[in-house]
Amino acid sequence: LLAPCKVLEKRGFEITYLKTGSDGIVSPLDVQKHLRKDTILISIIYANNKIGTIQPIKEIGKIKGKVCFHTDATQATNFLNLKVETLGIDLLTANAHKIYGPKGIGVLYKKSGVQIMPQIFGGGHEEGLRSGTPSTPLIVGMAKSLEIAQNIKNEESLRLCQLRDYFIDKVLKEIPIAKLNGHPMKRLPNNANFSFLHADAESIIIKLDVLGVSASSGSACEAQYQKDKKENRYSVRFSLGRQTNKKEIDEVLKVIKQCTNA
Amino acid sequence: LLAPCKVLEKRGFEITYLKTGSDGIVSPLDVQKHLRKDTILISIIYANNKIGTIQPIKEIGKIKGKVCFHTDATQATNFLNLKVETLGIDLLTANAHKIYGPKGIGVLYKKSGVQIMPQIFGGGHEEGLRSGTPSTPLIVGMAKSLEIAQNIKNEESLRLCQLRDYFIDKVLKEIPIAKLNGHPMKRLPNNANFSFLHADAESIIIKLDVLGVSASSGSACEAQYQKDKKENRYSVRFSLGRQTNKKEIDEVLKVIKQCTNA
Repeated sequence: LLAPCKVLEKRGFEITYLKTGSDGIVSPLDVQKHLRKDTILISIIYANNKIGTIQPIKEIGKIKGKVCFHTDATQATNFLNLKVETLGIDLLTANAHKIYGPKGIGVLYKKSGVQIMPQIFGGGHEEGLRSGTPSTPLIVGMAKSLEIAQNIKNEESLRLCQLRDYFIDKVLKEIPIAKLNGHPMKRLPNNANFSFLHADAESIIIKLDVLGVSASSGSACEAQYQKDKKENRYSVRFSLGRQTNKKEIDEVLKVIKQCTNA
Repeated sequence: LLAPCKVLEKRGFEITYLKTGSDGIVSPLDVQKHLRKDTILISIIYANNKIGTIQPIKEIGKIKGKVCFHTDATQATNFLNLKVETLGIDLLTANAHKIYGPKGIGVLYKKSGVQIMPQIFGGGHEEGLRSGTPSTPLIVGMAKSLEIAQNIKNEESLRLCQLRDYFIDKVLKEIPIAKLNGHPMKRLPNNANFSFLHADAESIIIKLDVLGVSASSGSACEAQYQKDKKENRYSVRFSLGRQTNKKEIDEVLKVIKQCTNA
């Protein structure tokens, strides 16, 4: 999200916004080219929350030099490598509710020696960085969900990649008007994002809702749509989760085919 | 807490700190005297978290004029009048875990028309005032605990006042070296704060801990001590709670008498 950047610009900071390729990938060379002597921070999302594209974090970590490197790993925590030293990351943020933990808590990894300013002032908790009585239940919940997510990361990534690729293959083969958004390979195991014509996208969302697909499978399926003004196409994001299975995928496929008359 | 004031001073704001009487009370006349044409905010804690003194919020609300008036009602939520319109309050803060709700959430009442700046920027949640996915369980927990607290406010205040006054009377009568801190009447129903000589205070705290007084009665008894350098005396705060009963008070009295050789 760009809101914090806009606030910093108002406070006098200069910010360079990098463009991504059509697959959503940030080029490490482009990062390198735009580094200035007075650059103090690079911030790149680990994996995109809409189209699921995984950024070349390790490559950017290699060319960042002494510039502080932050990544928002919220979408990546369930599936990707979080070894901050290997990745060259100085600051990493993530939250609990995207990894089946409690809502209302996140985590900030700060490399030793990196200096940051607090946003909340008060009793001086967390070494002055985040005042306020710590919520022990949320902290324990976050830690446990992180532990579980990292323990099952490899098998769950494999399982979801297979399921997702089955889904993507079917959609692209059987629904000619569907277009896959994002990178075909470098994407989160749980993400499938397609664009459809406006009416089709809306009808898919509504029908899925009515059929209770997302409801019946818990948090297994979440759908959002966004407009591509150029093409009058809307994109629909399908998120797979721990409870998603092949039977549900087939049901969703049926709905999509119905709605698009494929 | 004064930390946010110190931060605002660094950012160029001028802040007047008012002194309290020895009973801990802020004088409304003193507030009035220090109001300036460019005063934008008055912030006074509703009831002191250490010595339990209740401030004359309603009186200050009457003389505040058009200046925005904030009160931190964290300690008061269980016992005192929260009718913001009657009190003349524009901003009120409170949290959940002091009223038997979940840790990790608080509430900000903002009078319609009062303009405030967000501290956290991002997705624009809560009308842009507090970005971040709202934690529904914490919100529901906060609302429910507030409802319960307000429903039992009168009877619980009465019960605790009686219990606390019994405790204070006994301590002052039977332990001549004990001194009550704060106002004798205008204090929170759950607060009893005494000062003892250093060694006595420390020994009371340790003995209570060892005897498991606070542990056996849940959150019923919490003790803290603070030094009064002038007198080499330490103050010990006793907090009564929903589970506190007369038997526990008598046990605590026994410990205090033992430790002070009274």
